[in-house]
This record gives sequence, C-alpha cells and structure tokens, in this order.
Amino acid sequence: MKNNSENELRKVFQLERMILFSDAVFAIAITVLVIGIKIPEKEEVIKTYGNISNHTLSVALKELIPKFFGFIISFLLIGLYWSVHHRMFGFVNNYDSRLLFLNLVFLFFVVLMPFSTGFYGEYAGSELLEKQLVVPLTFYVLNFCCLGFVNYLMWRHITNPGNKLTDYPIDPVTARYAKFRSLIIPSVFLIMLPVAYLTNVIIAVYIPLLIPLLMKILKKYFIKQQVRLSNKH
Amino acid sequence: MKNNSENELRKVFQLERMILFSDAVFAIAITVLVIGIKIPEKEEVIKTYGNISNHTLSVALKELIPKFFGFIISFLLIGLYWSVHHRMFGFVNNYDSRLLFLNLVFLFFVVLMPFSTGFYGEYAGSELLEKQLVVPLTFYVLNFCCLGFVNYLMWRHITNPGNKLTDYPIDPVTARYAKFRSLIIPSVFLIMLPVAYLTNVIIAVYIPLLIPLLMKILKKYFIKQQVRLSNKH
Amino acid sequence: MKNNSENELRKVFQLERMILFSDAVFAIAITVLVIGIKIPEKEEVIKTYGNISNHTLSVALKELIPKFFGFIISFLLIGLYWSVHHRMFGFVNNYDSRLLFLNLVFLFFVVLMPFSTGFYGEYAGSELLEKQLVVPLTFYVLNFCCLGFVNYLMWRHITNPGNKLTDYPIDPVTARYAKFRSLIIPSVFLIMLPVAYLTNVIIAVYIPLLIPLLMKILKKYFIKQQVRLSNKH
Amino acid sequence: MKNNSENELRKVFQLERMILFSDAVFAIAITVLVIGIKIPEKEEVIKTYGNISNHTLSVALKELIPKFFGFIISFLLIGLYWSVHHRMFGFVNNYDSRLLFLNLVFLFFVVLMPFSTGFYGEYAGSELLEKQLVVPLTFYVLNFCCLGFVNYLMWRHITNPGNKLTDYPIDPVTARYAKFRSLIIPSVFLIMLPVAYLTNVIIAVYIPLLIPLLMKILKKYFIKQQVRLSNKH
Repeated sequence: MKNNSENELRKVFQLERMILFSDAVFAIAITVLVIGIKIPEKEEVIKTYGNISNHTLSVALKELIPKFFGFIISFLLIGLYWSVHHRMFGFVNNYDSRLLFLNLVFLFFVVLMPFSTGFYGEYAGSELLEKQLVVPLTFYVLNFCCLGFVNYLMWRHITNPGNKLTDYPIDPVTARYAKFRSLIIPSVFLIMLPVAYLTNVIIAVYIPLLIPLLMKILKKYFIKQQVRLSNKH
Repeated sequence: MKNNSENELRKVFQLERMILFSDAVFAIAITVLVIGIKIPEKEEVIKTYGNISNHTLSVALKELIPKFFGFIISFLLIGLYWSVHHRMFGFVNNYDSRLLFLNLVFLFFVVLMPFSTGFYGEYAGSELLEKQLVVPLTFYVLNFCCLGFVNYLMWRHITNPGNKLTDYPIDPVTARYAKFRSLIIPSVFLIMLPVAYLTNVIIAVYIPLLIPLLMKILKKYFIKQQVRLSNKH
Repeated sequence: MKNNSENELRKVFQLERMILFSDAVFAIAITVLVIGIKIPEKEEVIKTYGNISNHTLSVALKELIPKFFGFIISFLLIGLYWSVHHRMFGFVNNYDSRLLFLNLVFLFFVVLMPFSTGFYGEYAGSELLEKQLVVPLTFYVLNFCCLGFVNYLMWRHITNPGNKLTDYPIDPVTARYAKFRSLIIPSVFLIMLPVAYLTNVIIAVYIPLLIPLLMKILKKYFIKQQVRLSNKH
Repeated sequence: MKNNSENELRKVFQLERMILFSDAVFAIAITVLVIGIKIPEKEEVIKTYGNISNHTLSVALKELIPKFFGFIISFLLIGLYWSVHHRMFGFVNNYDSRLLFLNLVFLFFVVLMPFSTGFYGEYAGSELLEKQLVVPLTFYVLNFCCLGFVNYLMWRHITNPGNKLTDYPIDPVTARYAKFRSLIIPSVFLIMLPVAYLTNVIIAVYIPLLIPLLMKILKKYFIKQQVRLSNKH
C-alpha cells in the first residue's frame, strides 16, 4: 500500500462517495415522507362524505392535518440531521470501516423515518389525545432517539484524535460541545416517553419545546469555558 | 478558524454537497409525480367497464388524461424551478446557515408538489369545471406560490451584497431583474384564486398564460434600464 | 460577464450538475420500475387460490412472469439509454438553454417509463395475445419512441458544430453515424404499431429482434465510409 | 481518438458518473425497502382487531416484526454490497463496456431486492416455519445469489490485468482473495435451498451464520499465503 498523493486523492473521492451516498438516502427519505400522505380519492370521498363538493373536500383535507403536521416535523428533523451530517463531515478528511458502519446504521434510522412518521401521522389526530395512544408516539420517539444516539456515536468517533479522521485535531472543548449538543435532542425526546406513560400524551407532546432552551444554555456554558481556556493560554 | 485555500476548497465542496442534495430531491420529486398516476388494473377495469378489451382500456386511459395533464404541468414547473435553482447557484460560491434554511424550505415545497399534483389531478376532470371545485385548485396554487415566494427570498438573500455569497457583487439592475422575475410566476398564480372564487374556475385556469407576456414586458423594461445605465457611465 | 478560466470551471460544474441530475432521475426511474410489481399479499392469495402453500405461491409468482418480463425489458432499455446519455455527454463540454430543455423532455419520457411498463405488464400475459390488446402495447411503444426521438434531437443538437457544445468539432461521419443509430431503435419500435394493428400482436412483439441486425448493417456501412474518407485524405 | 491528459480527465469523470449512478440506485433501493412495510391503517386495525387502542396497535406492530426483520437483513446486505462496490471501485481507474454491462446487471439484482424482501417478509412469520413455505425463501435466496455471483464476475473482470482497469496490476494473491471472498456469501446462501427443500426451513434459516466463520478461515489462509510469498521474494 503506497502512501502518496494519488492515494490521498483516491481516499478523498472514496469519502466523497460515502457522503454523496448518504445525501441520496437523506434526499429520498425526505421525499418519501410525502408518499405517506394518501391523496383523498374520489371513491373514498363519496363513500365517507356522501358526495364530492368543495365542502367535503375541505373536510377530507382537514382530516389530513395531523399527517401534514407529522410530515412537517419529520421533514424539519431530517433536514436538521442532514445539516448536522453536513457540518460533521466538514471536519472529516478520512474514513475507516467503523465510520462506514456507523454511517450505515445512522442511515438505517433515517430510512425508517417515513414509516415512523406515517404510523404516527395515522393516529396523530384527536385519537392520539383522547385515547392516549402511546404506541405510535413511542415508536416515533424511539426511532428518532436511535438516530440521535448514533449521531452522537459518530461525533465521538470523529472527534477522537486517535482515529485521525480530521484534518487537524479538533480542540477538546469544541469536541465536547458537539457531543453534548448531539445528546440533547435524543435525550429530551426520550423524556417524552415516561411523561406520556405516567401522566399524559398531551403534556409529552410539548416537551421538545425545551430543546431550543437547553441549546442556548449549553452554548452559553461552552462559550464561557472557551473564554476561560483562551485566558489561560 | 484558518482562512486559507484549503478551507476555501472545503467550503466549495460543502456548497456543492448542498446543491447535489437539492438536485437529488428535485430528481426524486419529479419522478414520484408519475407514481401518483395509478395504472388501470385488470380487476378495476372489469368492475367499472364490464370487460377487458381495446375499447375499455382506451376509455380507462382517457379517464387518466386530466392526471397526465397535471403531471406534465408539474413536471415542467419543477423542471423550470430546477433550472432556476441551477442558474441561481451559478452565481453563488459561498453559503450561510440562512441560505441552508431557505433552501430547505424551498425543497419542502418541491417535495409537496407530488401530493398537490395528485390531489389536483384526481379532480381535474370534468368535475373541476362543472362543480367548480376550487379546493384542489387552491391547494395546488398555494403550494406553487409558496415555492415561488421562497425562491424570491433566496434571490433576495443571494443578491444582497452584504451577505457575500457570490464571487463578485451582482450589479443592482441584474439583481432587481432576477427578483422581479421570481415574483411574476407566483403572483400570476395567486391571481387565479380570487378569479376562481369570485367568477369561474374555467377562467382561472387560463390565467397562467399571462406569464410569458409579463416576462417579455419585464425583459424589455430591464434592457432599457441597462442601456440607460451604460449610457450614463 | 468575464470570460476567464474561472467562468470555464463554473460552466463545467453547471454542466456536471445537469448530468448528475439526469443520472439521479435515471436511477430513480429504474428503481421505481420494480414498485410496479405488487407483492402477492396473504389476503389476496387466500381469496384467489383458496389457501397459502408452496403450490399457490408458485402459481401467484407465475402470474407475475409477464410483469417481470416487462420490468426486465424496461430495465435494459433505460440502462441502454443511460449508457447512451453517458457516451453522448462524454463529448459535451458546454451547454445552452436548448440542451437543458431537450434533456428535460428526454427525462420526461424516462420518468414515464415506469407507468408504461406497469400498464403493459398488467396486460402482457395471455390476454395481450388472445384478445389482441393493442392499447397497452401502443402506449409503451409510443413512450419509448418519443424517448428515442428526443435522444436523436439531442444528438443532432450536440453534433451541430455551430452550437459549440463539444471540445472539438465531431467529424461529420461520426456525427451522422450517431444520429442514424439513435433513429434505428425508435423506428423499429414504431413499425410494431402498424404490424400489431394490421396483422397480429404476436408478430409485432418479435420485431425488436431486428434491431441488432440493423445495427450491424449500419456499422459496416459507416466503417466503409470512414475507410473511403481516410483514403481520400 | 487523442490520448492526452484531457481525455484521461474525461475518462475519470465518466467513471465517476457510473459510480455515482450506482450509488443513487443503491440509495433508492435501500430506502424503497421500507415502503414495503405498510403502515397499519385505522380502518384495517378496526376491521382486524375490533378497535383502536394501545393494545391493538401493539398487536398490529408485533405482526410486522418478521417484515422488519427482513427489512433489517436486506438493509445490511445492500449496505454490505454497497461497501464492497465502494472498495472494488477504489481500485478501478478505467472502464470498458463490459464493466458497464456487468455493473448494470449487478444493479438489476439490487433493484429487485425490495421486491424479494417484501415477498419474503409477507410470509416470513409463523407461516414460513409451520407450512414450510420454501417459495418466498427460494426467491429471496436466488435474488441474493445472483447479486453475489455478478459481484464475483465484476471482481474477476476488474482484477484481470489484461483489462487494464486498475491503476497498477493487483497482485494475484489479493485478487484471488477478493474473488474467493465474493463467492463465499452467495455459495453459503445457495446451500440454504437444498437444506430447506430436503430437511427443514427452520434449519436453512440459520445457515448464513456460517459466513463469518468461513470468512475468518479464508482470511487466515490468505494471510499465510501472502507470508509464504513475501518470504520467497
């Protein structure tokens, strides 16, 4: 195995290929989300509402609102994780088989999102709240937590200087910040489950609103740390 | 954060990645459009038309014409916006988180197009005209207007010299021209809605034919402006 | 508009983007083909064949053979046109809005292939032959002929030296060869239609076997021409 | 045909395009897998289990476990073959029409995987074991064996020094190792069929567990060979 500039170039292309493969999976998963929302068909509208008119079509669309809601949430979350993936691989200039594997597992949970979203969306209407349907919520939350947790493992693997996956070693404060940040989202989502089971699904649904708050606190804390560090040097 | 040529290269790759991700979403959305047109199945054809023959299959295909029509329109519109996206990012050599976000919202409305097209196509036949079904038309038009409006916001963000997203500052006349042009399509589509609600769906459907006319007028006006400007200098 | 090496580089990237967008559309269309083949579901198998056993599942699979057949044909044809597209853009190092438009129309007929294949496959069994179902055959053949014809238009546009889309002008013999070749496939397919309508669907189905023969004759003829030309010089 | 550096560059881009096209097909196939798992719909759950509650939804999800199982297996296998493809083309810096064709056939069996997985998953539950349903298993195994066998043909084509597809000739031991390895997976899978037909489906299902074992033995054997060879020189 020679270690010259040509091999370097090849390695970069191989890494790029992995990144673009991931992008394609992200792109497909984000588009497939909408396939989960079935178009109200003529026959169905007639069967359910008696006739086709502007009124019945509005009602049929209104029935889809929870599905659209789930679609938007998942679109934003997949979009968010795409941009995290984007930022993460902005640091990386090398790869090993473990990174390939972690990335594949990460993509597995991305690919599962359309199912989870569709399942959640199917029951996200009034039934979720009235009948306290925790099962679709649990499935969705677990899918998403796994995604977030594998994301954390990827950050840990990449920021580990021993693995030599980055151009220059990432400074420990930045690395710790990235890892903490990647744990916040799945952790907060995970809290939804005991809340939903022990108290109420309606309360659980509002828990993710904590995320921006916690993000801000974390940011402040780490900026302080960095200031302290740079004062030391 | 060093500011050397390597970082420059990385930024270019990161930007490329965003562009290629968008392309993948465009490609998938444009292909998924056709999934919305269901193939007339044996059982259904027998149930609806009594038997399978060249005659009944022709009738079944004829029933699909409005769906094909919607498919063609949406294919052209997505194709048009892809080429606008293509032209727009021909100027860009940098990105910021706002551009990433705007692009994501833009892709959201691209991803929604197969649903809107399918919903419109399902009722685009004689029923749309006879029963004055404004609901599917409204949904389609609003989806498309949002797409066009976010496209305008992207132009505004990119052509703003303060954001430093382009190689060299785009001259104000060109920038204004791009922004105006990006507003014409959604504006004209938006006019369809009051026309459809107040007068008639059939009239509304012909309004987009105004677009090429307005485009021509706008072009003439801006060429005049540019001539006047270059005369001044 | 400056005309320096940077602009050149940008043009190359813009062209690459168009190519990769086309690749994505090809890739999706080729994969979506298989979605058209519905998996025999438990309930359906029980309803149609009475029970679930190795025997009934074999019968259910056997029923799908014509669909698999259509799938394989379309997979090969799309694959063939992808490699033609691949070869064609091997010559190109520039683009204009007409090439963008032709490419979009070309992709339109690629995207339509899963529908045509599914429609043909649905009736490709014994019914196609017994009942002389020319409608699905016609639809499929027309879709494919349009694809081939737009491909011809692209070859004509690209090999036209006036358009300056290639690195160095393609010699007229090669250009004529490429154009002729691109006309053979759609022409032969087109002949299927009068044969199917006037004589018999079964005969029509065997006509594409003429293609390799005609390709060989054309190749011989053009090699002769090239030899004659090089003798002249 | 000139043979200068520009042509070299073009050839590399053409090769890259083939690779990225393959990646897109992989990405779509891997995402489409999940579409095969249908979301339990309200109406169906009510029809099958009487009402919608956490209990009935859990039961409906439990029914999907064999499908998820098939999905995970296929996801890992496609992921594995993607990384093999990734490694394989790490050696390649050239292409010929045979490689293009082999790659297309390879992709054909990748594209077929969602169907095979869906078909297997539909009957992978208790029925597969109780009723000894060998048909879905056979279909799945054959799909996968074809994939593996074409992969072997690709390795053979690429490692053949006469084809000049690699930067530098791959040493014969490495080449033989790659080829042997690529035969192990399909061979072991193929053994499942006689076992399933002659003895029992339940036994057959455990046969793939032999793969890691055989891989280890093969590795040891080849490392010995390489040591012996390097001792000779």
